[in-house]
Amino acid sequence: MILGGDGYLGWPTAMAFSRAGKRVAVIDNFAKRQWELEIGVRPLFPVPTLHERVRAWQEVAGHEIELFVGDLTDYAFVESVVRDFRPDTIVHYGEQPSAPYSMIDVRHAAYTQANNVIGNLNVLFAIRDVSPDTHLVKLGTMGEYGTPDIDIEEGYLTVDHNGRRHTFLYPKTPGSMYHLSKVHDSHNIHFACRIWGLRATDLNQGVVYGVETDESAMDPRLATSFHYDEVFGTALNRFCAQAVIGHPLTVYGKGGQTRGYLNIRDTIAMHAIATANPADRGDLRVYNQFTEQFSVLELAERVKTAAEHLGWDVTIEHTVNPRKELEDHYYNAKHQKLLELGLEPRLLGEELIDTMLDKIKAHQHLIDPSTMVQNVRWVPEPSKDAVHA
Amino acid sequence: MILGGDGYLGWPTAMAFSRAGKRVAVIDNFAKRQWELEIGVRPLFPVPTLHERVRAWQEVAGHEIELFVGDLTDYAFVESVVRDFRPDTIVHYGEQPSAPYSMIDVRHAAYTQANNVIGNLNVLFAIRDVSPDTHLVKLGTMGEYGTPDIDIEEGYLTVDHNGRRHTFLYPKTPGSMYHLSKVHDSHNIHFACRIWGLRATDLNQGVVYGVETDESAMDPRLATSFHYDEVFGTALNRFCAQAVIGHPLTVYGKGGQTRGYLNIRDTIAMHAIATANPADRGDLRVYNQFTEQFSVLELAERVKTAAEHLGWDVTIEHTVNPRKELEDHYYNAKHQKLLELGLEPRLLGEELIDTMLDKIKAHQHLIDPSTMVQNVRWVPEPSKDAVHA
Repeated sequence: MILGGDGYLGWPTAMAFSRAGKRVAVIDNFAKRQWELEIGVRPLFPVPTLHERVRAWQEVAGHEIELFVGDLTDYAFVESVVRDFRPDTIVHYGEQPSAPYSMIDVRHAAYTQANNVIGNLNVLFAIRDVSPDTHLVKLGTMGEYGTPDIDIEEGYLTVDHNGRRHTFLYPKTPGSMYHLSKVHDSHNIHFACRIWGLRATDLNQGVVYGVETDESAMDPRLATSFHYDEVFGTALNRFCAQAVIGHPLTVYGKGGQTRGYLNIRDTIAMHAIATANPADRGDLRVYNQFTEQFSVLELAERVKTAAEHLGWDVTIEHTVNPRKELEDHYYNAKHQKLLELGLEPRLLGEELIDTMLDKIKAHQHLIDPSTMVQNVRWVPEPSKDAVHA
Repeated sequence: MILGGDGYLGWPTAMAFSRAGKRVAVIDNFAKRQWELEIGVRPLFPVPTLHERVRAWQEVAGHEIELFVGDLTDYAFVESVVRDFRPDTIVHYGEQPSAPYSMIDVRHAAYTQANNVIGNLNVLFAIRDVSPDTHLVKLGTMGEYGTPDIDIEEGYLTVDHNGRRHTFLYPKTPGSMYHLSKVHDSHNIHFACRIWGLRATDLNQGVVYGVETDESAMDPRLATSFHYDEVFGTALNRFCAQAVIGHPLTVYGKGGQTRGYLNIRDTIAMHAIATANPADRGDLRVYNQFTEQFSVLELAERVKTAAEHLGWDVTIEHTVNPRKELEDHYYNAKHQKLLELGLEPRLLGEELIDTMLDKIKAHQHLIDPSTMVQNVRWVPEPSKDAVHA
């Protein structure tokens, strides 16, 4: 059961599980499509409705994906679909996923935290009360950790202190209202495992890049909702779109912000691995789900180099950083556990960037350059009404 | 400005600040009085309405306390009162404060987290946007920490790891949906200080006991809302009421659960100290606000001894623990910072227990024994509808 099954990652994950022979249901309330309308952006590739996608998948792949439409903050809905479908695994992508969106103003911050935290709480209670053996695979984020001055372990930190020792959930220092919502989720899930004996895997995912998966490439109607705008588009995806239209690659400040990154195909593979290896009852497993670390500037330089090999003229522009974050910091995040479970990572090579640039180029006429910069500031200007136009 | 100014701690705090010559406003939406109606409990001492309390205070003490009625989850309300009153300090008690209430079912859990987290977020945004110099003094709880196997420091933990060092917010392992809501608040407040430069003090308070303060004792109409029931009554308060009516003192399981405790008069004193020593802009100070550690069994034994000296016959009953928690664990929580700032603690002596027993005895006819046990279970019985009658 894929929560958020209409999204950038949810839909490709649903197709991949379905193609692998699993019985799959997708759940969505199409809130993301509302947020797109609200801020005036759209995915690069035309995305049919979820009803149409499910029908196209049936036609192309010959597999049925079941579809339930509803809101995770409505407990009666959540309980009824969990009771009816009785999933072995719930893959939970169904949250507001954008840090800039959460930082627009108090309304968007409160919405993001209430939506994400209460939706996830409802999932936990529904599992507890009607399907306690279900394995929850929850999408967290590497951004929960922030940038501490010590190594980032996978989920837990053992501390020696005054002659005694304790293992904690790794302490979190998140950088936006959205990232905070995921930290709150992690604490709630930890409680549900400790106190109720639920089984869960929290995937602290890095920044995902990529335009397609094996399944989305099977038919244009199966495309995923690829964003290049500043609110929903991730760094590499945005840089590639900027390179295609000759827009400077916009690097925030010095560009030394280092994060973990991964290919969308590895997101799918990692969810398959997490699902095939369920946590024990009472256990919250945490994986750091990325394959490589890059600074934002390194990422921009890779895109620039690849584009230049295609003969394009690309510049990098260091813009004022709308976020408040360290631009030069220690960063060493562990990510061994999924490798030990058999992940074969697809690292970021020039061919991959070329593929992305090609595919985006083919849709160049659909790019709206005005959405590349949205100016959502982490610390608002003195005139507080100027936060978001 | 006292948020939750109608409560057990809010009203006495408001009177104490007012008597000390401060301009004081109380804010409440009377949600607590609704929760009392919902579960069928009432405070031991008759509590007038907040409008009546404010008038009585004017009459008795000659000071005005301003009153604003509204809901902290309504941002327009929060912004307007902060803009109008322009407080130097916001003392934030305005949250759903009961762990058992939060554990009744999914609706109460979701309500507690949404109410507490969104209300607190609204306070943070209002300070940021209309009164950025205001010092937020936020009531947290020692229950945020749980019972780790190492010493509990005051708010922060410095960790040496793989040859490097970092100071984190102390990692939290809370034991109920309510305690989780306070952990979420702490992370949000930390963000507001780090990113927006707000100033805040998070008071991780222990379990408060006591029937009155200097101000509440001035007139019966100024009584605080003292609870002895299992949902809103804290351990010592409930034991005293049980001793008065000859009910066994109900200790959960072995009674080895050790926590920090403090006198309600010290709550007031500590809030005065925190307020008189505001945090710097950008700084989140954290104090562990309690004066002594006791196990639940020790506490029951103290009440039993004091009552026996009065010639009463008191028994201790070890009941099935409705919570899921360790009943035998390491616990060493630091609480130096408020002492260093001048706190002179009122420790729990037999005279204090005598005073409590006397005062409760005088109201014995108002005690409803049926509310002593509410049977809210942390892990519901197999029949899930039996959680709460």
